[in-house]
Amino acid sequence: MLKLYFSPGSCSQASHIALEETGSAYEAERVDFGIQQQRSAEFLHLNPKGRVPALVTERGVITESPAILAYIGQRFADTPIGVPQDAFEFARIQSFNAYLCSTVHVAHAHKRRGSRWADDPAVIEAMTLKVASNMSDCFELIETTMFSGPWVMGEAYSIADPYLYTFTSWLEGDGVDPRRFPKVYEHSQRMAERPAVKKVLSVAAG
Amino acid sequence: MLKLYFSPGSCSQASHIALEETGSAYEAERVDFGIQQQRSAEFLHLNPKGRVPALVTERGVITESPAILAYIGQRFADTPIGVPQDAFEFARIQSFNAYLCSTVHVAHAHKRRGSRWADDPAVIEAMTLKVASNMSDCFELIETTMFSGPWVMGEAYSIADPYLYTFTSWLEGDGVDPRRFPKVYEHSQRMAERPAVKKVLSVAAG
Repeated sequence: MLKLYFSPGSCSQASHIALEETGSAYEAERVDFGIQQQRSAEFLHLNPKGRVPALVTERGVITESPAILAYIGQRFADTPIGVPQDAFEFARIQSFNAYLCSTVHVAHAHKRRGSRWADDPAVIEAMTLKVASNMSDCFELIETTMFSGPWVMGEAYSIADPYLYTFTSWLEGDGVDPRRFPKVYEHSQRMAERPAVKKVLSVAAG
Repeated sequence: MLKLYFSPGSCSQASHIALEETGSAYEAERVDFGIQQQRSAEFLHLNPKGRVPALVTERGVITESPAILAYIGQRFADTPIGVPQDAFEFARIQSFNAYLCSTVHVAHAHKRRGSRWADDPAVIEAMTLKVASNMSDCFELIETTMFSGPWVMGEAYSIADPYLYTFTSWLEGDGVDPRRFPKVYEHSQRMAERPAVKKVLSVAAG
């Protein structure tokens, strides 16, 4: 059985929702960032990067959200979260998810994870200043050039949807009003109604 | 015919090498960063993000290295760069490439692209201080926990190889001696001997 290591509210939420959407049984284990459990010897043995998500499969551990999401989408191809066989359609999804992971997540991370890129507390503090405008620029680009509607990729729900939903949920904390992006905002409202999303949020809160 | 927009020495080099490895005809057009061509209206129409690589296909444009590399690997499945059908093996490759794009590229970008995350010149300058140690940490993790050998993923050459090769070529400029990572360094020497790599480097230099 697949086992996901997650932390509530982190990007691992996307993989968690995707697993729930498959309708298959899986385990989800919370990694407690409050006690730095992601830096524990036990967890580092599983994922030397000390990050979530990490998905344990029968054949080994998969890390990095875009890889985990694609794996879930390929393994459970006949579920709502299944990815298309067509290489171009798959590339559209992977391109969107890569943008979230390499640009949007990084813009967001400069708010609370600035110590990754500087040691001087004043520099780390200064890095937070551009977070709101960067996140705003990213979501403007998503709203106007990437989001097809009603789902991210168009008519079909996909692994891009729980991933975007997770990032949208970060906007307010980053000082950006999500209502400025009507299509993305409406998407997040609609996502919140999905049983899989409700289930994952209740597990994370519990 | 596929058409790749690239800039010499940038991460687009990986997609360029991958295309060359397919043995199929393609076009490659240089985007001149010296005159900010990536910000031109013409290029932004193609890729609103104003970045390379961008791959123009018969059905639309694909951006983001991990998505382009996977697309090339799926489209040319029976070439040296073809990706495996098996979802777990594919996930291993995607996980490695996602790490390069979201963590290693970002660590590197704080050297010359700090203006993405701050406006104050002193802060941008301060961001360069941790680049060498971050790149070193990333490559230590790659060398000890990710690189299988003789190729990144093991016996089979894959889309992860030109991507890693491109990043390894950045180390010296980032103040890190690549010889500190013997497996990765030997890999880069071996990559440099591949006809596809020689061809791409000569086109980029020309």
